[in-house]
Amino acid sequence: MTRTAVVAGVGPGLGESIARRFVAEGCRVALLARTASYVEGLAADLGEAALAVPTDLTDPDAVDDAFATVRREFGPVDVLVNHASGGSWKGVRDVSLAEFEHAWQVGARAGLQCSQAALDDMVGDDEEAATGGTIIFTGATSSVRGRGGAAAFSSAKFAVRGLAESMAREFGPAGVHVAHVVIDGGIRPPGRDVSNPEEYLDPDAIADSYWHLVEQDESAWTLELDLRPHVEAF
Amino acid sequence: MTRTAVVAGVGPGLGESIARRFVAEGCRVALLARTASYVEGLAADLGEAALAVPTDLTDPDAVDDAFATVRREFGPVDVLVNHASGGSWKGVRDVSLAEFEHAWQVGARAGLQCSQAALDDMVGDDEEAATGGTIIFTGATSSVRGRGGAAAFSSAKFAVRGLAESMAREFGPAGVHVAHVVIDGGIRPPGRDVSNPEEYLDPDAIADSYWHLVEQDESAWTLELDLRPHVEAF
Amino acid sequence: MTRTAVVAGVGPGLGESIARRFVAEGCRVALLARTASYVEGLAADLGEAALAVPTDLTDPDAVDDAFATVRREFGPVDVLVNHASGGSWKGVRDVSLAEFEHAWQVGARAGLQCSQAALDDMVGDDEEAATGGTIIFTGATSSVRGRGGAAAFSSAKFAVRGLAESMAREFGPAGVHVAHVVIDGGIRPPGRDVSNPEEYLDPDAIADSYWHLVEQDESAWTLELDLRPHVEAF
Amino acid sequence: MTRTAVVAGVGPGLGESIARRFVAEGCRVALLARTASYVEGLAADLGEAALAVPTDLTDPDAVDDAFATVRREFGPVDVLVNHASGGSWKGVRDVSLAEFEHAWQVGARAGLQCSQAALDDMVGDDEEAATGGTIIFTGATSSVRGRGGAAAFSSAKFAVRGLAESMAREFGPAGVHVAHVVIDGGIRPPGRDVSNPEEYLDPDAIADSYWHLVEQDESAWTLELDLRPHVEAF
Repeated sequence: MTRTAVVAGVGPGLGESIARRFVAEGCRVALLARTASYVEGLAADLGEAALAVPTDLTDPDAVDDAFATVRREFGPVDVLVNHASGGSWKGVRDVSLAEFEHAWQVGARAGLQCSQAALDDMVGDDEEAATGGTIIFTGATSSVRGRGGAAAFSSAKFAVRGLAESMAREFGPAGVHVAHVVIDGGIRPPGRDVSNPEEYLDPDAIADSYWHLVEQDESAWTLELDLRPHVEAF
Repeated sequence: MTRTAVVAGVGPGLGESIARRFVAEGCRVALLARTASYVEGLAADLGEAALAVPTDLTDPDAVDDAFATVRREFGPVDVLVNHASGGSWKGVRDVSLAEFEHAWQVGARAGLQCSQAALDDMVGDDEEAATGGTIIFTGATSSVRGRGGAAAFSSAKFAVRGLAESMAREFGPAGVHVAHVVIDGGIRPPGRDVSNPEEYLDPDAIADSYWHLVEQDESAWTLELDLRPHVEAF
Repeated sequence: MTRTAVVAGVGPGLGESIARRFVAEGCRVALLARTASYVEGLAADLGEAALAVPTDLTDPDAVDDAFATVRREFGPVDVLVNHASGGSWKGVRDVSLAEFEHAWQVGARAGLQCSQAALDDMVGDDEEAATGGTIIFTGATSSVRGRGGAAAFSSAKFAVRGLAESMAREFGPAGVHVAHVVIDGGIRPPGRDVSNPEEYLDPDAIADSYWHLVEQDESAWTLELDLRPHVEAF
Repeated sequence: MTRTAVVAGVGPGLGESIARRFVAEGCRVALLARTASYVEGLAADLGEAALAVPTDLTDPDAVDDAFATVRREFGPVDVLVNHASGGSWKGVRDVSLAEFEHAWQVGARAGLQCSQAALDDMVGDDEEAATGGTIIFTGATSSVRGRGGAAAFSSAKFAVRGLAESMAREFGPAGVHVAHVVIDGGIRPPGRDVSNPEEYLDPDAIADSYWHLVEQDESAWTLELDLRPHVEAF
């Protein structure tokens, strides 16, 4: 079975590792992110199983257009990774309302809108005839522990997690596996050396667990798992 | 000491019980909610310690104006209750982006903006000279457990909790006690009989715990507590 | 109403502050701890509302005898504080099975046994006719976050919390309020100066929250609250 | 690499699926459980990669002997699954101290003792030269939510989780991956038909996630994941 996957908010690092892994597993992968040159370069690198769909996820019309493109090129969506994240790390008094809103739009509202589009494909009009699918949200330490000095990021990450939990409970019976991954640590930055590589999560290793979530049998689904480097203090 | 308190999102039921209790404890209480006739009626009932400040909490300019009014009439804010909540109980596919946004604006964004205004008074320009204060957020079961079929409400309630946690960590050292109350059950509806009153939280009883949070010594502050009727299954 | 309270595992610091506060609120308070000279001295200090009941809480027969004494002197138990705690802070490989067991006996098994005795008084043979009461468990940071290097303490504290949650769900409908307090920080040591007092919880301030739990109306009970100094990093 | 795995508390259903899967992945698997006939039958079925080690996990001497046998036959332990669980589902007033203790001995104390033995192999005397390994604890819904009417089971399951968390933090840096799996639902009973199979977790599907935990790269380890059937209400 060839699955159609969407990575919404793909970027160098984890998003790219997820896309690469999904292609390696036989998926067609649509790459959604704002910068056209980036997603086009990545799609060229990944070959014909990949599709560049430059999309500003904070623009609802653009998101609608993107999913129309995905369906036209690759057919209905089977797997969605809501990977976009934003939010300047500012304290409560320093963050502007616009910055606070932007973090929420990128994470929570775009996550909702992309999921609505994917659920149209996964569930359709007749829940009994649903084909199902997988929706994974990328979370962070701040998804479960509001960080002092990161008000917009923490609040938006909590909002995403609340959405994911609600969605998991609503659509599990219809065969849609919704999962939330808490990434607790820094991800190894691509393309440059770091002095202490073992202190970072390897994005390819994270992608292993994303793929495991896609492959889980519906009799034993995970809603949430955490991931961190073995040396991380937590 | 006469404290100035703001109840943002006051309404019949819990908000009103909190306002009444705070007045009984000697606070001056500013009542912020959209419906002018309601807050004016409540203020008239509560007497001169209460101030009606009709405010659409989703309108940033209106919130700014409201706090200017509070300061002019009652002086700097010592206690803020972020009590507003919204969100139609719709599932992921049924909720519109506008409804999803509205729930977040009422809960999270208004909570941020009201807190920014209150922190200006509580902390000021010099954290060493901060007078401190108390900021309480009203949460719900869906703040800690995303409810299937209530996507906007759950996501917004999570967003509020993440904001509260972040704020607590940032401003505890400056003497601002930030707390989040998880109300796990239905609140007894005012003004009508119910057949099974013991299945509801009494809003006056909830207000006892809000006031306890205000009175806690800074050596032993609570970030979060839950409240539910003794017969609640949970 | 004069309540009979038992503080099981009373000691200098928090246990003593709880006992003192409960006496001040009009309770008769039975003081259970191993060292006879200590509980007798404390009882003498607290006056005739206090009863010294030297008890090794790890000895089931001694616990039975203690409650028999309490009932004979003070009547049925209305409030129980399961305050005993133990456990050397050793890592997994360093702790002995005996040390691991001791921590569990002091915290969890004694907590069960004392609660069984108290529930006999609070609920009796006819749940419909139950008089109810309050059972509070003293928890710690390690109750909710297993600490590396404190295997026995963490495991025993988790065991206590699981017991408290189970008990709260079972006996809430019968009018018994079971609560668990997570004390997240060091308690100010009695009888000596510390250089940085604000970094500690004041035991009298903690006792305020214990008494608040006793006084909560049954329509709005708290299962769990946390307490920490305002400057605590958490 | 041929790993040596121990499944402590193996039984029909999940334990057996784990053992079978581990053998299929090339592990030698030692089967520890009380009933000799059962583990010997299972070992015969699994072939020479399996070793029957009849062991009463509540008997410390028997556990020591079991690990001596495992090392003699299969060499040092690389993977340990602490799978034993016990505890009659009785309420607080109905459970005896002996039943309460038994549940804790089977789950928490045996988990500690088996882990101590495994850590001797995985870490040795020189943490710098540690070979590492994996220790997985089987949890349940009651590990994270104390169930009314199941006092011993809930308390013991919490105790296990606290131990697992403490152990994970202590031994992650030495290369030992400690994980805790929350199984939230009923496991399909082996050897008989059920009318509603989709309401149960398939033990083979659970075993997939156990093996995924064993295979995770040390840069991205999971401490905890939950598993439930897609139709489970939670």
